[in-house]
Order: sequence, then structure tokens, then C-alpha cells
Amino acid sequence: MYLDKIKQLITQSGIFLTDQEIKNLEITDFGLGEFSKIGLTIHTYLNTNRCCAKELIMLPHQTCPEHAHPSSLTKLGKEETFRCRYGKISIFIQGTDTPKSSVSPPNNGERYYTVFHEVVLKRGEQLTLQPDTKHWFQAHGSGAVVSEFSTNSDDLTDVFTDIRINRFSFL
Amino acid sequence: MYLDKIKQLITQSGIFLTDQEIKNLEITDFGLGEFSKIGLTIHTYLNTNRCCAKELIMLPHQTCPEHAHPSSLTKLGKEETFRCRYGKISIFIQGTDTPKSSVSPPNNGERYYTVFHEVVLKRGEQLTLQPDTKHWFQAHGSGAVVSEFSTNSDDLTDVFTDIRINRFSFL
Repeated sequence: MYLDKIKQLITQSGIFLTDQEIKNLEITDFGLGEFSKIGLTIHTYLNTNRCCAKELIMLPHQTCPEHAHPSSLTKLGKEETFRCRYGKISIFIQGTDTPKSSVSPPNNGERYYTVFHEVVLKRGEQLTLQPDTKHWFQAHGSGAVVSEFSTNSDDLTDVFTDIRINRFSFL
Repeated sequence: MYLDKIKQLITQSGIFLTDQEIKNLEITDFGLGEFSKIGLTIHTYLNTNRCCAKELIMLPHQTCPEHAHPSSLTKLGKEETFRCRYGKISIFIQGTDTPKSSVSPPNNGERYYTVFHEVVLKRGEQLTLQPDTKHWFQAHGSGAVVSEFSTNSDDLTDVFTDIRINRFSFL
């Protein structure tokens, strides 16, 4: 149902993925059952112990819910850079609340959003987040495609503010 | 002189760089004075202690000369993944010599090319190299744009087989 729109966004971004890569896209609703509002479509180019690169495809107004990548005693948490390739996204991080932010948290689980300093990224803009940084992000009206360059991605240790979330709930 | 062609390759790849990023491109001839044959144009998205991402733009038949990213006593060498976005490149690594490879080393410094196992990457294909892997690569006739996802990039410790090379010779 959503795959045509996802493919359209990828084409609009100028990023080429092979047919096999399109077939293997990771499409998650985070277990909240409202994919068009809270969800993410991911292509992982590589994810080794040291290095990871992905494309994140977001439907219009779709939100990736608030989470952080914590450090442990034995391993530094994930450092990640988001580079906007198409459309526009708002990333929210800790800091002074942005008075009139351009987007709001989704209705589902609104109380689990706690950081409200907004950084808007449009095509060609990027933001680097250090480990342990709480963040959430939402695409604007055109949807968005965002490249993520990072250290190892260990989704198992992600900490979501919304305790109902299941990162491994796939469509 | 070459900037128009470089800009054209970037456009053809579908990768968007801002005007400022185009102005800041790193354009090196490796000190050999024959940029169209031996050289590389680089945009670095980010390069932190842990993570690095770049675009490599290559003119038709241009070669990035043989080198490796060695580990030291205190630091693992660079791990890097090349993802072809446009055109086609041949990457040469250690292994069985490819009998009829599609490209040859450049005339200038030919004796400094020592690994001849060819991996051809076309659009949407990628290859990951571990630290300490000798490699060189050459674009085919259309030129190429290649994304590089890697750990920290420390050009100072790169070891080029051709001892005449100056990695920091810029156009």
C-alpha cells in the first residue's frame, strides 16, 4: 500500500537503490500500528562493528519516535549524522524549546516526547548527534529521504521514551 | 578547467551538493601533475574520530593510485566501503590477478601498481575493504561518482606505493 509512495520518494531523492534493495527495505511501524504517522523505512548499505550507512525514507508527516543510543560500560553509543537528500525534516533534540516549531509530536503517545529544540534540515543540510542524545524527527509535507552516516547501529540497545514501542515490528 | 565536468558528473549521479560544498571540493593530482589521468575530487560530509562519509568524483579513465590505510599500535586502520552512484569503476585489490582486466594502470608510475585482482562496480554496487588492504581504482569511460562510508579518515597515515606521491597537492 505504501510501497509506491516509498519508491517515488527514493526516485525523487536521486538516490539509486537496486530492485533487490527495494525488496529488502526494512519497514517498521514501531509496534504502534499507525505506520503512516509513526514509522520508518530503512535501507542499510552496511553495518559493521565500526561503521554504518543507511537511507531513511519518510512519508509526509511521518514521525520517528523519540529515542537515544546510550553508551554502555564497554561500548560508546552510536554517533550519527543525518543528511537530508530530499524534502525537509525537523529533528528535535535537547536544548531550549523552540517557541513555534514547524511540526508537533504525533497524537499517539504524545506524552513520550520530551525534547523540543527543533533543527530543520532541507536538501543538502546535515546534523551530527553524539551518543546518548535524545532525539525524534518528523518529515514535512513532501516526505523526506535522509542519509544516515554513523558508527555501528545496534538497534537492540536503542532506548525509546515510549515504553510501548517495539522497534522490531515490521510491515 | 575540469570543474564543469566535475559538476556534470555530480548532477548525473543524482547526489545533491550545495554551491558552497562545490566551491570547497578537494581536488588533488597527488603531486604527479597529470590530474586528468591521476587524481581525485572529494567532498567530505563529515570526518570525526569515529566516522567519515565522502563522495569521490572521478573523471573518465582517472585513477586513484595504489595505497593502503595501515593500522598502528594504537589505532585500527581505516575500514571503507565504496558504493558506486554513477558510471563504473574498477577497484583492484590483492588476490588472484584478473587475466583480462578492463582497465590498466596509468603510464605515469606504472611500476608502483602491485595488486591486480579487479572488482568492477557499477551503479548500485558496493565493496567493503578492511584496514591494511592495498587498493587502487580507476573510472571507466563515463567517469564515476562513488560514495565512501568509512571509519575516521586520516590522510596523513595513508601509505602510497608510489613514493613520489604528495596526497596534499591540490589544484
